[in-house]
Amino acid sequence: MPLLFRRPLSTLAKPRTVFSGIQPTGIPHLGNYLGALSNWVKLQNENPNDRLIFSVVGWHALTLPQNPKELAASRRDMLAVLLAVGLDPKRSIIFHQDSNAMHTELAWILGCITPTGKLRRMTSWKTRLAQSRNANSESEVDESLLNAGLLTYPVLQAADILLYRATHVPVGEDQRQHLELSRDIADTFNRTFKKPLFPLPTSLINPSSKMSKSAPDASSRILLTDPPSLIASKIRGAVTDSITTGIAYDPVARPGTSNLLAILAAIEDVEIESVARRCAEANMSHADLKREVTERVDALFEKPRAEFERIRGDPGYLEQVAKEGAEKAREISAVTMEQVRQRVGLA
Amino acid sequence: MPLLFRRPLSTLAKPRTVFSGIQPTGIPHLGNYLGALSNWVKLQNENPNDRLIFSVVGWHALTLPQNPKELAASRRDMLAVLLAVGLDPKRSIIFHQDSNAMHTELAWILGCITPTGKLRRMTSWKTRLAQSRNANSESEVDESLLNAGLLTYPVLQAADILLYRATHVPVGEDQRQHLELSRDIADTFNRTFKKPLFPLPTSLINPSSKMSKSAPDASSRILLTDPPSLIASKIRGAVTDSITTGIAYDPVARPGTSNLLAILAAIEDVEIESVARRCAEANMSHADLKREVTERVDALFEKPRAEFERIRGDPGYLEQVAKEGAEKAREISAVTMEQVRQRVGLA
Repeated sequence: MPLLFRRPLSTLAKPRTVFSGIQPTGIPHLGNYLGALSNWVKLQNENPNDRLIFSVVGWHALTLPQNPKELAASRRDMLAVLLAVGLDPKRSIIFHQDSNAMHTELAWILGCITPTGKLRRMTSWKTRLAQSRNANSESEVDESLLNAGLLTYPVLQAADILLYRATHVPVGEDQRQHLELSRDIADTFNRTFKKPLFPLPTSLINPSSKMSKSAPDASSRILLTDPPSLIASKIRGAVTDSITTGIAYDPVARPGTSNLLAILAAIEDVEIESVARRCAEANMSHADLKREVTERVDALFEKPRAEFERIRGDPGYLEQVAKEGAEKAREISAVTMEQVRQRVGLA
Repeated sequence: MPLLFRRPLSTLAKPRTVFSGIQPTGIPHLGNYLGALSNWVKLQNENPNDRLIFSVVGWHALTLPQNPKELAASRRDMLAVLLAVGLDPKRSIIFHQDSNAMHTELAWILGCITPTGKLRRMTSWKTRLAQSRNANSESEVDESLLNAGLLTYPVLQAADILLYRATHVPVGEDQRQHLELSRDIADTFNRTFKKPLFPLPTSLINPSSKMSKSAPDASSRILLTDPPSLIASKIRGAVTDSITTGIAYDPVARPGTSNLLAILAAIEDVEIESVARRCAEANMSHADLKREVTERVDALFEKPRAEFERIRGDPGYLEQVAKEGAEKAREISAVTMEQVRQRVGLA
């Protein structure tokens, strides 16, 4: 074998630039953790040449009405959460989107090449508008309430990604349509202004993202900061089913039970079927299963919870991280924006 | 009389903050000069406590397709024009909009409280889209071609104004609807986030703005940089009428003649009727009238034209003006944005 093939994988794999964002709208729940955050942390241990950029995207939060005081608190807390779950500001760039105005600058420029027709065809704004109005269905929603921010949300998201010329974006199922649009906008920009500038970003599918969608009840009720007693009572209270012939994975007939199995599988990072088999073979009852889930979630959240309280109590450190993160983010995006301004004729 | 009333007016009038912008899409014509630029210059001699802010609004230009090379040249030229017509960077803040990203930041935030329904009701995007497609009428325009930038153009315009908490905005007839929207957005922001932040901007009607609309032919064909011979030939070629009973102001029956009278009146800063009377009393022919207009326009543009060539040949000076203007603009807008961020919950 030639020497080349004996090199460690990390030096062979082409370095990626990964961008992802999270809205500061409350403490993340178990579904957010398993579906997104834990995967961000894992990325830190993959190719050391990957550039990892994670952002608390406050401007996106404004597309729906917010309580300003709560938003300000959530914004700080979300940064503390990112550090608490294990994102390392020495390894990853961690920053507040709203501390880098180049996001909105690029969003404006990209908006000038994005037809409103494409934005109206996005389904996300209908869903979000329906949720914000507590409507029962999307058809109930009064379109005249749609604000410009919510309509152009995917353009800002494209700017978030393209500003760092990200090559990979961890996305859940619900974000696929937006990532497609980002690729589309990148391609339009490259073709309109001749000299290609943006790579077309590829999705990094979150392995657990399906789980968090199929039965959101249990995993969306447990928050990262819940104390063990609350975790236990929330899991005890999770709806399962009245089938007593043992544990089995059947998301249609037994959604509650299947959701608990999916949580276990996601925590253990194994296939759901294999967890289901183990539980069945051990003759577990629903109570046994819930006990095991409780123990695993407890163990999973113990350190992040303590870390969160510690970091939150150190506002000076948080400010420092935010400041340094913003500086690094601006440094990269300034290079992109110089190119953008040249190409569009504003330099 | 109490002493108070003997003070000069300027110390009594409440200082205003005036904002206005001009798109860098080519050398201004006589209509632009008489309808906007000359009024900006006049403002410099009114209340010395007025804060005057004039911007070359490059981001607005992107809402229609541009040739990037031409745009970059026009962007620099427009700054030179502003100085050439007599705007004084020591008296007024003169800067490139695209060098202050807070414009797009505020536009994003304001877009989050602006219903798309209101934006669709603006007539300007239809006109601009029709023009850009060389359509004969607005109804011919394919709405699917409307990009997000053109739809949200009035939101960026509101941000331009509100970022400096401008109290007065010189506008032409065609911009009234946009200024109304700016007031509306300012009011919505003040009410949504409780503590009022933005004054509702008032229009400063350009006295000559009607002239430039009613018969745009002659005044829109003469550019600020045209040499005298070209000015003369353009005015000689202006369509008048075959009525030989003398000069009279009658915009319906004699639009061409009336346009020439309106140009004279605007240059002399007097009523059109009084110019018409003078010309009639002097028994002027069309040729006489054209000769007088040519002389007046020549005299009007002589200095700006020379100044433009001089300033344009000094890129270092232009850069310096742009840099200092941007710094002053950012200084004021940073104060506004700190308040905005506090109110919306992103600080």
